[in-house]
Amino acid sequence: MGQRNLLEFFDNPHPGRNYEIVHIAPEFTSVCPKTGQPDFGTVIVRYIADRKCVELKSLKMYLQNYRQCGIFYEDITNVLLDDLVGVLEPRWIEIVTKWRPRGGLRSIIRAQQGKRPAD
Amino acid sequence: MGQRNLLEFFDNPHPGRNYEIVHIAPEFTSVCPKTGQPDFGTVIVRYIADRKCVELKSLKMYLQNYRQCGIFYEDITNVLLDDLVGVLEPRWIEIVTKWRPRGGLRSIIRAQQGKRPAD
Amino acid sequence: MGQRNLLEFFDNPHPGRNYEIVHIAPEFTSVCPKTGQPDFGTVIVRYIADRKCVELKSLKMYLQNYRQCGIFYEDITNVLLDDLVGVLEPRWIEIVTKWRPRGGLRSIIRAQQGKRPAD
Amino acid sequence: MGQRNLLEFFDNPHPGRNYEIVHIAPEFTSVCPKTGQPDFGTVIVRYIADRKCVELKSLKMYLQNYRQCGIFYEDITNVLLDDLVGVLEPRWIEIVTKWRPRGGLRSIIRAQQGKRPAD
Amino acid sequence: MGQRNLLEFFDNPHPGRNYEIVHIAPEFTSVCPKTGQPDFGTVIVRYIADRKCVELKSLKMYLQNYRQCGIFYEDITNVLLDDLVGVLEPRWIEIVTKWRPRGGLRSIIRAQQGKRPAD
Amino acid sequence: MGQRNLLEFFDNPHPGRNYEIVHIAPEFTSVCPKTGQPDFGTVIVRYIADRKCVELKSLKMYLQNYRQCGIFYEDITNVLLDDLVGVLEPRWIEIVTKWRPRGGLRSIIRAQQGKRPAD
Amino acid sequence: MGQRNLLEFFDNPHPGRNYEIVHIAPEFTSVCPKTGQPDFGTVIVRYIADRKCVELKSLKMYLQNYRQCGIFYEDITNVLLDDLVGVLEPRWIEIVTKWRPRGGLRSIIRAQQGKRPAD
Amino acid sequence: MGQRNLLEFFDNPHPGRNYEIVHIAPEFTSVCPKTGQPDFGTVIVRYIADRKCVELKSLKMYLQNYRQCGIFYEDITNVLLDDLVGVLEPRWIEIVTKWRPRGGLRSIIRAQQGKRPAD
Amino acid sequence: MGQRNLLEFFDNPHPGRNYEIVHIAPEFTSVCPKTGQPDFGTVIVRYIADRKCVELKSLKMYLQNYRQCGIFYEDITNVLLDDLVGVLEPRWIEIVTKWRPRGGLRSIIRAQQGKRPAD
Amino acid sequence: MGQRNLLEFFDNPHPGRNYEIVHIAPEFTSVCPKTGQPDFGTVIVRYIADRKCVELKSLKMYLQNYRQCGIFYEDITNVLLDDLVGVLEPRWIEIVTKWRPRGGLRSIIRAQQGKRPAD
Repeated sequence: MGQRNLLEFFDNPHPGRNYEIVHIAPEFTSVCPKTGQPDFGTVIVRYIADRKCVELKSLKMYLQNYRQCGIFYEDITNVLLDDLVGVLEPRWIEIVTKWRPRGGLRSIIRAQQGKRPAD
Repeated sequence: MGQRNLLEFFDNPHPGRNYEIVHIAPEFTSVCPKTGQPDFGTVIVRYIADRKCVELKSLKMYLQNYRQCGIFYEDITNVLLDDLVGVLEPRWIEIVTKWRPRGGLRSIIRAQQGKRPAD
Repeated sequence: MGQRNLLEFFDNPHPGRNYEIVHIAPEFTSVCPKTGQPDFGTVIVRYIADRKCVELKSLKMYLQNYRQCGIFYEDITNVLLDDLVGVLEPRWIEIVTKWRPRGGLRSIIRAQQGKRPAD
Repeated sequence: MGQRNLLEFFDNPHPGRNYEIVHIAPEFTSVCPKTGQPDFGTVIVRYIADRKCVELKSLKMYLQNYRQCGIFYEDITNVLLDDLVGVLEPRWIEIVTKWRPRGGLRSIIRAQQGKRPAD
Repeated sequence: MGQRNLLEFFDNPHPGRNYEIVHIAPEFTSVCPKTGQPDFGTVIVRYIADRKCVELKSLKMYLQNYRQCGIFYEDITNVLLDDLVGVLEPRWIEIVTKWRPRGGLRSIIRAQQGKRPAD
Repeated sequence: MGQRNLLEFFDNPHPGRNYEIVHIAPEFTSVCPKTGQPDFGTVIVRYIADRKCVELKSLKMYLQNYRQCGIFYEDITNVLLDDLVGVLEPRWIEIVTKWRPRGGLRSIIRAQQGKRPAD
Repeated sequence: MGQRNLLEFFDNPHPGRNYEIVHIAPEFTSVCPKTGQPDFGTVIVRYIADRKCVELKSLKMYLQNYRQCGIFYEDITNVLLDDLVGVLEPRWIEIVTKWRPRGGLRSIIRAQQGKRPAD
Repeated sequence: MGQRNLLEFFDNPHPGRNYEIVHIAPEFTSVCPKTGQPDFGTVIVRYIADRKCVELKSLKMYLQNYRQCGIFYEDITNVLLDDLVGVLEPRWIEIVTKWRPRGGLRSIIRAQQGKRPAD
Repeated sequence: MGQRNLLEFFDNPHPGRNYEIVHIAPEFTSVCPKTGQPDFGTVIVRYIADRKCVELKSLKMYLQNYRQCGIFYEDITNVLLDDLVGVLEPRWIEIVTKWRPRGGLRSIIRAQQGKRPAD
Repeated sequence: MGQRNLLEFFDNPHPGRNYEIVHIAPEFTSVCPKTGQPDFGTVIVRYIADRKCVELKSLKMYLQNYRQCGIFYEDITNVLLDDLVGVLEPRWIEIVTKWRPRGGLRSIIRAQQGKRPAD
């Protein structure tokens, strides 16, 4: 993977408050590591920042970077989570990935880290 | 049934986390053991992996294997659950099957195993 | 009513598990004992089996048997419950009947027996 | 009011069970006692019978009897409740009336009597 | 029927123009001449006035006047049409009545008179 | 068949006008002549009367009369049409029947007679 | 009426072209001349300008001016049309007013002037 | 394909009339001749019979017969059309097949034969 | 206005064919020339190119250029049309602008130029 | 472009009939030639075959081949049309491409070739 360095951040302008940030990316595409065929899905990032917020254009570039990458649904969901945790150190974060059908099967993966603070 | 060996798995890439995996298969078909007529339904697999994740193409092939198999709704739901439990040893798993009408009756079967851990 | 003998069962293939079985019959018809006019409704059977599961075709035939039977909504709902309890001895069971309008009034009856075990 | 005698009942065929009975009457009409104008509403009767169940056709006739009756929304809701309590002596009963707009205002009245037993 | 005299009109304030007027009355009720039971329906009046427009409150009172009147669906639809034609002498008029179910049957009647002029 | 005599009519109260009459019966049931199993469907009658209108209660009784009758979808649709044509001699009439699924197949049959006059 | 002078216009910036202009005002209110009660409705103005376009703020003020005005639905619809025709002299114009229920009746009035040119 | 002989017919009970018959089969499944993977689709048969009507149970058995058959979408649509034309010799017939996604692509095929007569 | 020069084009890659191009811009904003308040709307550009196609990024920059510009709805719609006609010289073009409510009024303006050729 | 050779065809199994074939590909992705950013869209192919039908898997591979290709919306729509015309020589064909928003703008392109024959 190793693309974590593409993620840029800016200082959370209001760290004294627990507020929710959601980014929805319906144009995610990667490649199935087994068949070499493209996969298509929606990535939903939902977090409560501590000291850092992810910069949106860098998040776009980071996600685009998986375009030719062969990786399982379960793995990419956790890698996204790990990379965002590593860069942002949020108070709480959740990643949901929803995939278009393959072989008649459609999948949804949901992972989170941290305990969500009260708003 | 003995098709359990069709199920392949890969190592859970992130076993340190309780994250949810859902696979939805709306093209399931088997055969009624009483009438010999085909049955059609949707199979929903929802689980929290421990050390193993089911490989998606093998899950498709495993489910297709019931195409000519005569089996009751209640049985197939539990067999799917037992086979996935046997291969994956998940922390928690639930199988729901929703069937198209037969003789004016439509059925839904839901079974689970394990105690769902907090995310 | 005495049609209980039409209900056939098969051995619960997985008695070690508390799993939910739902059968929905939107084509139920009986006769009003007061007016002789036909009634139409949907019957929903929801249960957790112990040692026996109701066989679907026999359930269809059993329900069809009320086609010419004169019986009140409240009564048929409880008779269905009693007959299924008598034949299946389930751990828990609920019957809901929803009726099409008669004289501008539509009715819903809901009855259950047993204490629903945790899944 | 005094129409309570129009309500007929039959013996609860299954008094040993706490089961819910719901009757929905979307064609209720009475007259506003202030303006003499007709009111239109839906009456919902929901109860758990003790020894008596209301007979449906008599309930229809009873409700029709208010067609020319001048009575406030709040009053009719409670009179329906009192009359059904008086005739049925149910374990628990609730009446909800939902009214079509008058003067740009629409109203909903809800009243109950008794403590609802567990199913 | 003879209630035509309840209908009041006012002078079409703009007789030089063919413009469409629609009144929708969802609270119509009359009585079935065969069973004595109340019927409920929606009346839609659509017309292009010549010299007279129906006054809305009188239309309401006129329609309320059928509350105790025993009359078939087909008849009332045409009587409404005839009465409005008689009083308004419109350039074109259409009446649609849509009825709530009776005996499991619901009905719609549609009648018009005159040739609709271009706007 | 021979139930045509159950259909009663009343004189069209407004024969000078071509107006449309629609009756929708969603509770039709007959029996499959091949399997003996009950069929369920919706019958839609749409016509422009000449001198006679079908009486609604007799239409209900006529339709109920097929409850135990074994007859194909195509046949019943045309028999309904023939019987109503025979009794009413309408200017134009159309019958549509829409059937609930049998063996995974659902059917719609549509037949008419006469040329629909302009309103 | 006499409020026509509240309507301001600006020169059609592109009189060489037949283009459509639509203004939708869902907050119109006037007073019933018979009962003194407020009426509420939506006014839709649709026109093809010739040399003048209505200025939007003046249209708002003009419409607000009817707040205390007692006027029938049919009249106000035509007055709006006449006033806009008088001020704008459009190539074609249509006014639709849709009213909230009064006495259980809701009304829609539609009037136009001129022949709509091809775009 | 040679399964045409599975199709049974019965005499059109009303050949003097052009009426429309529609059968909708949402549980069709065949096999892709290229990949050996199952395909799933909905088959819609719409026709005006001449002397013969297709018997519904035989149509179900005929369609089930493609369960293990390897055949392209375009071919099966035309084969269904040819077989039904061969057996029924209808006045007009249309077949539409709508397929679930394969490789991210979903397909719809529509073919007809004969000129549709006026009703 | 004078921003026409911001619009860039590229050579129509397939000028031998009449094909339709649609661009929908839901984020347009300009300023009301009367009140100085911001207006928000959707701009829809639909055209059949002759020798030139509008480059999408330049269209975005061109539309953004109106952010501080005070201009009426009717005017901007026609200016967009004139500018695109001036730069692209299309075979046919239509502009629709749909505006968010101002003062309780929402507006839609539609203009086109040229005669649309057959595809 | 030069990927036309990826398209495989099979002989139209029923060339004597004008029947419609539709393939819908909602997972198309290419690259903007100006910004290097990925574009996402849905491609709809609709045609009436002459002697050749496009093989579905090859169509998938052909469409995937644009994954890294920099090309304008207008161009790719026509290139798809030209390639399919070149390989299939259909009687009539239409391509529609619908694109996800870029810079706040979303686009739809539609092109066809040939004159559609009657079915």
